[in-house]
Amino acid sequence: MSDLELAASVADIRAAAERLRGRAVITPLLDYPLVSERLGFRLLIKAETLQLTGSFKFRGACNRLTAGVAADPNLRAVVAFSSGNHAQGVAAAAKLLGLKATIVMPSDAPAIKVANTKGYGAEVVLYQRHKEDREAIAREIAARDGGLIVPPYDDPFIIAGQGTAGLEIATQSKALGLAPDVVIAPCSGGGLVGGVALAVKSAFPAAAVYAAEPEGFDDLNRSLAAGERLANKPGTPSICDALMAEKPGTLTFPIHRKLLAGSRVVSDEAVLDAMSFAQRHLKLVVEPGGAAGLAAILAMRDELAGKTVAIVCSGGNADPEMIKRAADRGDPLA
Amino acid sequence: MSDLELAASVADIRAAAERLRGRAVITPLLDYPLVSERLGFRLLIKAETLQLTGSFKFRGACNRLTAGVAADPNLRAVVAFSSGNHAQGVAAAAKLLGLKATIVMPSDAPAIKVANTKGYGAEVVLYQRHKEDREAIAREIAARDGGLIVPPYDDPFIIAGQGTAGLEIATQSKALGLAPDVVIAPCSGGGLVGGVALAVKSAFPAAAVYAAEPEGFDDLNRSLAAGERLANKPGTPSICDALMAEKPGTLTFPIHRKLLAGSRVVSDEAVLDAMSFAQRHLKLVVEPGGAAGLAAILAMRDELAGKTVAIVCSGGNADPEMIKRAADRGDPLA
Repeated sequence: MSDLELAASVADIRAAAERLRGRAVITPLLDYPLVSERLGFRLLIKAETLQLTGSFKFRGACNRLTAGVAADPNLRAVVAFSSGNHAQGVAAAAKLLGLKATIVMPSDAPAIKVANTKGYGAEVVLYQRHKEDREAIAREIAARDGGLIVPPYDDPFIIAGQGTAGLEIATQSKALGLAPDVVIAPCSGGGLVGGVALAVKSAFPAAAVYAAEPEGFDDLNRSLAAGERLANKPGTPSICDALMAEKPGTLTFPIHRKLLAGSRVVSDEAVLDAMSFAQRHLKLVVEPGGAAGLAAILAMRDELAGKTVAIVCSGGNADPEMIKRAADRGDPLA
Repeated sequence: MSDLELAASVADIRAAAERLRGRAVITPLLDYPLVSERLGFRLLIKAETLQLTGSFKFRGACNRLTAGVAADPNLRAVVAFSSGNHAQGVAAAAKLLGLKATIVMPSDAPAIKVANTKGYGAEVVLYQRHKEDREAIAREIAARDGGLIVPPYDDPFIIAGQGTAGLEIATQSKALGLAPDVVIAPCSGGGLVGGVALAVKSAFPAAAVYAAEPEGFDDLNRSLAAGERLANKPGTPSICDALMAEKPGTLTFPIHRKLLAGSRVVSDEAVLDAMSFAQRHLKLVVEPGGAAGLAAILAMRDELAGKTVAIVCSGGNADPEMIKRAADRGDPLA
């Protein structure tokens, strides 16, 4: 498989892993033999909930900023727009590297994400999700402060950084003596699932890598069918605040087209059930968007029978209200 | 340090680790650098919530049963009494080894624990916690079925099995280039903290190992002060259903006296705050008893400044109602 025409390669992901060494957490690939027995397939959880800042986003942000400082030692400030997890990733990476961070966040972002972003020392600028253009606001701030804009997914360094999670899945699966048949990661702009697909397919060419998307934000599913990037209808609600990108990225979509087995679409109800499953059986707090992959496999049980399935639980920054809504669901395995 | 007079030795723990190989999960020692920065000390979490059956209890049970079958190949049945986590550990270990398990559980045990114990194929016999004698009921069943009684803590194989968690803490700390200054584990009958102390003090003689006990069940704290085993007042309520042993064990107490730096007593309120801390910052579901060590360190922040502190989060089998009570607490770090 040649990656020459794609925005990032496995070599880029390996370089990212070097930049992240000693900075990002090598998150565990959790093995749940008894839960797997009940599910009828071998479930492995890549717990990015345990990554610095509570989501995989630190990986891409740290890779982008480290490379940015290497390219321009005079770099002093960064600007990002994000519903919350990228915000925290950029804020924490900026703090680590001694850079000023300004983050443009929607006014309806979960309180825990806004609080944490400020907690990592970033300045937060709020905007109206459905009315204002966050990229324009970010460009204005970057022009004023002379800062580097750190996009959430459409950037080779971001894609390669997120891909380090896939590299770890490959290494950790091998250490368990397992080869994943199926790998699923949540998808918004697609940096994570794109990077993971690059790394996983390089180690396990036969693995089927899927994206998981929320209802109303199934742009990748429709785009893969159409063969071109299609947008979501604006103003659609979802509890998956982390997965509300408008459409696939220009850099990520070619990776998806080439490497993904497909994208599975999950409802808010299925996501809440997946969060309940995570609380009850995995003992993990997973946020709605982070649980999309889990929601997908709970609906795919029949087709997964007997297989080895690695799921990226991509984030754990759930507000207490959302944790309680999930706790109120019944047991999806009962 | 000679362990000759103690019920279990580091050699016993190493033998237990051999018996558990490929059966128990080697749970991760989780590193949270950004949370540690906020706490002012390096926090490492031994996540026994991720052990088979959701608590460390599988370790001791599997060690006891494996050794039992080795000693008597005709063994067919086991009997245990437990508020829930030992129940699940014994049930799952019995299933693995093809043994019939009967578990005597209090009628007020968390629903999730009763359901899971039955789910692992065990027969559950309920009793009234403050009125009936669970050990007598277990002895009757064992006499009837010819089964092996698996006590929850006062048994050399149980202590050695739980100690494998401590062996892993030592190995995993070294892999991170760290030497824990302080190690804390929740304590009921004291098998876990006893075994962990044996293993940890062998690798790091200077480490201070503490027990954490709930208010009203501070028998170890008082017994260490008195130099003899003192009982708790019967009928005391606590949300820490897993930590309600009557008094220190005859085999565990000598280990505690010799090796522990002390026992820290935590209130129900502090435990709920620790569960909230785990949800918000560690992204882990921890049950009340499992969070006692965390509750202790949140109260010890000043004396822990600058240190490396490993906490055993010993179980994650929290009922949804308890998860919600914790989610309703504020952020203990705010």
